[in-house]
Amino acid sequence: MAAPIDFYFDFSSPYGYLAAQKIDALAAKHGRSVDWHPVLLGVVFKQTGMAPLTGIPLKGDYSKRDFARSARFHGIAEFRMPSRFPIASQAPARIVLWLKAQDRALSVRVAKALFHAYFREDIDISDADAAVAVAAREGVDAAAARAAIDDPAVKDALKREVEQAIGRGVFGSPFVIVDGEPFWGLDRFDQVERWLATGGF
Amino acid sequence: MAAPIDFYFDFSSPYGYLAAQKIDALAAKHGRSVDWHPVLLGVVFKQTGMAPLTGIPLKGDYSKRDFARSARFHGIAEFRMPSRFPIASQAPARIVLWLKAQDRALSVRVAKALFHAYFREDIDISDADAAVAVAAREGVDAAAARAAIDDPAVKDALKREVEQAIGRGVFGSPFVIVDGEPFWGLDRFDQVERWLATGGF
Repeated sequence: MAAPIDFYFDFSSPYGYLAAQKIDALAAKHGRSVDWHPVLLGVVFKQTGMAPLTGIPLKGDYSKRDFARSARFHGIAEFRMPSRFPIASQAPARIVLWLKAQDRALSVRVAKALFHAYFREDIDISDADAAVAVAAREGVDAAAARAAIDDPAVKDALKREVEQAIGRGVFGSPFVIVDGEPFWGLDRFDQVERWLATGGF
Repeated sequence: MAAPIDFYFDFSSPYGYLAAQKIDALAAKHGRSVDWHPVLLGVVFKQTGMAPLTGIPLKGDYSKRDFARSARFHGIAEFRMPSRFPIASQAPARIVLWLKAQDRALSVRVAKALFHAYFREDIDISDADAAVAVAAREGVDAAAARAAIDDPAVKDALKREVEQAIGRGVFGSPFVIVDGEPFWGLDRFDQVERWLATGGF
């Protein structure tokens, strides 16, 4: 079986949320699995000098319109812009990374539930207790999840994950790597699809 | 007949070059014409605090790979990265704007020729004489084109064009406006297409 494709995302990223609805089916269609990597764009932006989209003059207003339009275009009707945006995503990222070491399938279900909570239910998942409550709905032990968020080993694991992502050239969300080939953005999923189908072009 | 769609581009923009190969056919398929607007991203970037793609850490390296891959993906085989990049695009923009006031069809042919010269023949069209020579191949009077580049009225016309573009929210290249709806990037041409086909979604 071919290697999994790598899917990098930040829980605060609207395009990351939209991509999270698509990536597993896209990979499965071509006989591939997906390795989900939560990362922290705030750390990445420090290295690149980039800024969150919505704070940039002109581009910010456009982005908010494009998030909603792209959701409709891709048939994801339930997207709504959270009241608080952007948010720090350490809490949900640590929960998912902690789970990933124990039960990969569960960690993906929880990642999807966290995205769902933020971009459909307007739950502020930057809050540790709120993020834990979402994970608990999926059957995760709440006390253990809450402890994981403050566990130095989990914190270090996330730092390493972000450093490794930067080392592989990841600078945005979503970011997909297929057999070494990097693709940035939901709007490159058409190219990801052709790459998977043809082995490169 | 429906209003033309507005196509904004910078002659130094690789994605602008790729979009320029596609925009007329896309519009014509839906019974629309295209109003070509050369703009200066350097001026726009001052307002938004943005920077040329290729100078940004991580994103810069990715971009160069993506330019070439996107060209292949869209069936534009002849793209090649110019030796000098990015360039100031006042000279080609002024020639095209000056021609547009006299002969709109000719101004589009010359715009395509200038893009072709820069992204296929590696001609540095930021040089006034080089840009004039490209226009002359299309039948433009060389002496008049050379004079237009330094004509205060043409300079002012370009300044106004850029200001109007910024006023309409244009912050990148290519940028398309269809009946008031803004689309940034060649990778939104799928959404432009659906918008033209359906009148909005």
